[in-house]
Amino acid sequence: MSESLIERRQRLLGLNVPVFYEDPVHITRGEGVWLWDAAGRKYLDCYNNVPHVGHCHPRVVEAIARQAAVLNTHTRYLHEGILDYVEALTAKIGHGLSQAIMVCTGSEANDIALRMAQAMTGKSGIIATDNTYHGNTAAVSQLSTRREPIGGRAGHVRLVPAPDGLRPIGGSVEGQAEAFAREVGRAIVDLEEQGFGFSGMMLCPVFANEGLPSLPPGFLEPVLGVIRRARGLILCDEVQPGFGRVGGHWWGHEAMGFAPDVVTLGKPMANGHPVAAVVARPDVMEAFREAFGYFNTFGGNPVSCAAAMAVLQVIDEEGLVENARDVGAYLLDGLKALKHPLIAEARGTGLFFGIEFMREDEPAGTFTAEVVEAMRREGVLLNRLGRHGNVLKLRPPMPFSRQDADFALDALARVLKAMPG
Amino acid sequence: MSESLIERRQRLLGLNVPVFYEDPVHITRGEGVWLWDAAGRKYLDCYNNVPHVGHCHPRVVEAIARQAAVLNTHTRYLHEGILDYVEALTAKIGHGLSQAIMVCTGSEANDIALRMAQAMTGKSGIIATDNTYHGNTAAVSQLSTRREPIGGRAGHVRLVPAPDGLRPIGGSVEGQAEAFAREVGRAIVDLEEQGFGFSGMMLCPVFANEGLPSLPPGFLEPVLGVIRRARGLILCDEVQPGFGRVGGHWWGHEAMGFAPDVVTLGKPMANGHPVAAVVARPDVMEAFREAFGYFNTFGGNPVSCAAAMAVLQVIDEEGLVENARDVGAYLLDGLKALKHPLIAEARGTGLFFGIEFMREDEPAGTFTAEVVEAMRREGVLLNRLGRHGNVLKLRPPMPFSRQDADFALDALARVLKAMPG
Repeated sequence: MSESLIERRQRLLGLNVPVFYEDPVHITRGEGVWLWDAAGRKYLDCYNNVPHVGHCHPRVVEAIARQAAVLNTHTRYLHEGILDYVEALTAKIGHGLSQAIMVCTGSEANDIALRMAQAMTGKSGIIATDNTYHGNTAAVSQLSTRREPIGGRAGHVRLVPAPDGLRPIGGSVEGQAEAFAREVGRAIVDLEEQGFGFSGMMLCPVFANEGLPSLPPGFLEPVLGVIRRARGLILCDEVQPGFGRVGGHWWGHEAMGFAPDVVTLGKPMANGHPVAAVVARPDVMEAFREAFGYFNTFGGNPVSCAAAMAVLQVIDEEGLVENARDVGAYLLDGLKALKHPLIAEARGTGLFFGIEFMREDEPAGTFTAEVVEAMRREGVLLNRLGRHGNVLKLRPPMPFSRQDADFALDALARVLKAMPG
Repeated sequence: MSESLIERRQRLLGLNVPVFYEDPVHITRGEGVWLWDAAGRKYLDCYNNVPHVGHCHPRVVEAIARQAAVLNTHTRYLHEGILDYVEALTAKIGHGLSQAIMVCTGSEANDIALRMAQAMTGKSGIIATDNTYHGNTAAVSQLSTRREPIGGRAGHVRLVPAPDGLRPIGGSVEGQAEAFAREVGRAIVDLEEQGFGFSGMMLCPVFANEGLPSLPPGFLEPVLGVIRRARGLILCDEVQPGFGRVGGHWWGHEAMGFAPDVVTLGKPMANGHPVAAVVARPDVMEAFREAFGYFNTFGGNPVSCAAAMAVLQVIDEEGLVENARDVGAYLLDGLKALKHPLIAEARGTGLFFGIEFMREDEPAGTFTAEVVEAMRREGVLLNRLGRHGNVLKLRPPMPFSRQDADFALDALARVLKAMPG
C-alpha cells in the first residue's frame, strides 16, 4: 500500500498542519489567475494574493532567473538593486516615508515595526485589534493569536474590539468610529497606568482579517487622533491591502486617507519570492537604528530586489491598480446582485471581497464552509475569514478580468442555488 | 555633482547601516568562489557561507528558474516539493529528528525553536552564551544583543560566559568544560528561583560567533548533562556549522558527537534563496503545534524547496563535505605555519577558520581590522569575529580548492609581512 500525500505530509511535517479543503488540492502548475492540479483539472484562483501579478508571471520569473545567475549576496557590499528598488517603492508611498529595511517576511517586517515604535517613544505598550493577524514571530504572534502563549500574554499588549459593519462596537454603525477610538483611548490609559507606556497601534487599514468590514469614509479619523495625541506611532500593516489590492489606490492607507508613521509590506511584494519590507520616515529609521542592531542576511539581496522591482513594473505597465478598481467594482456589483436568504452583506474594496452569511441573527460559519467546498468542486478556489468564519473571502491575483469575474459569479450563483440554506 | 552609492544608500536605507571595509566593495557578479566589482576587479571570496555551493551555481539557478516558471504557492495545498526536501534533509540528520517546519530565515527558525522548548517544558527560561548571535527577531535578539532592549532585557533570558580557548572560563583550559557546565547550572537554578523555569539552551555547536574556540573532544558533555538533567531542550543552531561546513560531517553536532532535540538551519540552505528550517522529533513538533498556531506564507514554497534540494544534491554530488575536510585541513596547516609575532592561535574546523591576534596579553582588534582591509586590497574578502574583533574569520564557499587556499595564504603572508605589528 502506497503512502498518500496526506500521510507523507503528516510523517514529515507533523500533525495539525492544516490544508485547505476537505479534499485538499494537489496543485502542480500555475499561470495568471489559473491553477492546475495533478489530474490536470483547472481552477480559477479567487484566493491567492501572493502571486499578485499572476502565477508565474514571465517578467518576474525572468528577473529572478537572470539575477540569480549573476549575483546573489547580502547588503554589506554595495549594490544598486536595493537602492533602485527602495527608490521606486518609496516614490509610491509619500508622507516622508523615504527609507526602508528589506526583510524576507511580513512577520519580520512587523516585528521590526514594533521596535520602531519602541525606539521612537521609549515605551513598549502596543495596541492591535482582537481579531487580527500581524504575523508569527514570538513578538508579533502576541498580537495575532487568541491562544494564551506559554509564559502568559505579554503585559505590554492590548487587544481592542475589532470594527464590524454588522455588529458595531458600541451598538450603532453611526457611533462606531467614536466607540472604537474610545476603546483605544482606554487601552492607552491602561498601558500607561501599568507602567508600559504607549508606543503605538498596529493596524491593517482595511481590517482584512477582522472580516473586511464596510466602514464609512473617515472612520479612522477619531482613532488616529487618539493615537497621535498620545504620541504613539501608527504602524500600518499593508501586507494585505498594499500594492493596489484595494483598487484605484496603491495602499490601504491612501484609500482610507491617512498618513502612517511606518508601513509594512509582505506577501504580494515579489509575487511569492520571500520579500518584505518596513518603510519609514528617516527620523523613525534613525531612532530604530540607534536603539537596536539589525541586519538581515537575505533581506534586500539582488535577486529579491529584482523580483520585487519586476512586480512594481508589471503593476504599472499592466495597469493593475486600475484593473483592481474596475474589475473589482464589476465583480462587487455582481456579488451584491446575488440572491440568497443567508447573504447578510456583500462588500469589498478593489479585488478583495467578503460575502457575509447569517442565519437569522447568527453567523453562518458552517454554511460558509460548505460554500467554500462546493466552489472548490466547481473549480473556483476561495476561502473564508472573520471571527466567526462566516465571511466568504475572494482575493484573486490582480490580472483578474471581467470574464474571470463572470466565471466566479456563475459558479457562485449555481452553488448558492443548490444550497437554499 | 552626482550622488555616490554610499550617499544614495544613506538616503534610502538610513544612517548606521554598516558596510564591510573602509572602502566598501561594489560587487556586481559572482561565480564559484570569486566575486567581481563594478570596475571588473576579481576577489577571492573567503568570507561568504551563504553561497554555500559557490556563487550562482548553475544547478541551483536552474532549479529556481525552472520551478518559478511552473508554480510558486504556499503549503495549504499539497505539493511534493516540500515533502521530497524534508525527507532528504532529515535523512541527513538522524537522532529521530524526522520532521521540519520550513521558514525563510534563520531568525524565524530560532524564534520557533524557542517556542518548541517552551511547548515541551511549559516553561519559558532560556540560556545562551554572552557573545553569540541567534538572529534578529524581537525574541531571539534578546539572546543576540549586548545592548539593553527598550523595556529591559527579558526576565526569562540568561546569558552565560562563552567558552574561549585562550581565556578559559574558570581560568584553566582543562577545567573549562566543567566550569561552563557550572555556569549553565547556576543559570538554571536562577531561572527556576525567579519563576520562569528552564526550557532549554540554544547553542551553536562550534561557538562560531563566540570566536570559534579550539575546544577538546567531549567539551560539551558536562553542559549537555546539566541541561538534560534539568529536563531542558538542546536547541542546536546549525545556521553556520551546518551543511558540511565543519568538514567531514554534515552537522556541527555530529562533529561534536551529540544528539540535539531541535536543529535550526538557515544561511547556506538554498545558496542565498531565503530558506531556513527547524527540524525536530515528532514529539517536539506535536507539542509545538498544540501550544502555538504557526503558518509561514512563503515557507516551504515549491521554489524554495527546489533551490534547497539542488543545494543538497550538489553537496553530495560534488563531494563538498569531504572537500571541506580535505581543503580545510590543508588550509589550516598553512595558516598554522604563518609566522607573525601577533598570531596567538590559528584554528579551524572544516572550511571555517579563525586566526587570533594578540599584542602581549591584549586582543589586537585594531590590528586585525587592518589585516582585513589589507586583504581586501590584495583581492581577498574576509572579515573578523569574536568578542574583541581580534579573530580573523575565513569561511569561504564550499567548492574552495587547494589552489584557492594557496592564493589566500600567499596574500595573507604578504599582508602580515608588511605589518610587522
